[in-house]
Amino acid sequence: MEKVNIEEKLALFQDYWNPRIVGELNGQHVKLVKFSGEFVWHKHDNEDELFYVLKGKFKMEFRDKTIEVFENEFLIVPKGVEHRPVANAEVSIMLFEPGTTLNTGDVTNNLTRNTLDKI
Amino acid sequence: MEKVNIEEKLALFQDYWNPRIVGELNGQHVKLVKFSGEFVWHKHDNEDELFYVLKGKFKMEFRDKTIEVFENEFLIVPKGVEHRPVANAEVSIMLFEPGTTLNTGDVTNNLTRNTLDKI
Repeated sequence: MEKVNIEEKLALFQDYWNPRIVGELNGQHVKLVKFSGEFVWHKHDNEDELFYVLKGKFKMEFRDKTIEVFENEFLIVPKGVEHRPVANAEVSIMLFEPGTTLNTGDVTNNLTRNTLDKI
Repeated sequence: MEKVNIEEKLALFQDYWNPRIVGELNGQHVKLVKFSGEFVWHKHDNEDELFYVLKGKFKMEFRDKTIEVFENEFLIVPKGVEHRPVANAEVSIMLFEPGTTLNTGDVTNNLTRNTLDKI
């Protein structure tokens, strides 16, 4: 059992859209990820997802609206809801979601990460 | 679906050891709580608990060691492990844990909160 320092973990990687696992509990994963640019539209049929902004800001696009999420704010995207994260500049995010969650949900493309590193 | 601003939520309450629910996903709760002083020794037979320090610092005491957790650090306490949070000054914490989690675990005393407010 060891504590996790967010800044130290964020310093370990620099690539975008590639979540790292930094914690596991109750079948859920805590992940860190950096976004920059536009992701792909997708949804998760079985998983709700929490996006907590650690540094920076981003927009979560939905089919009917957009929500801008700033530092120290979080947004929960319910299962089944199509969404697309967009970041005009680098943003660091903490994710909290089931261990089964695939980053691109029901879509498979070059952004899909089937296995994630634990750091 | 609305985003949650941590600072705004923390400003809504001032009492200690009384978690508020600020998010729900996948059967888990996101809670905010303020600690000050010493809590009670307890464990959770079925739930792992995550403590993320938003502001301040605290010590998590275990039977065999103590871990001090600072701002922007988190600690996961596995189910079954006895623990006691101690804070020398006010600390603001975000909790991730199953919706079934009782704050005092296997102990019932004046600190036990059987129902939590959603804010």
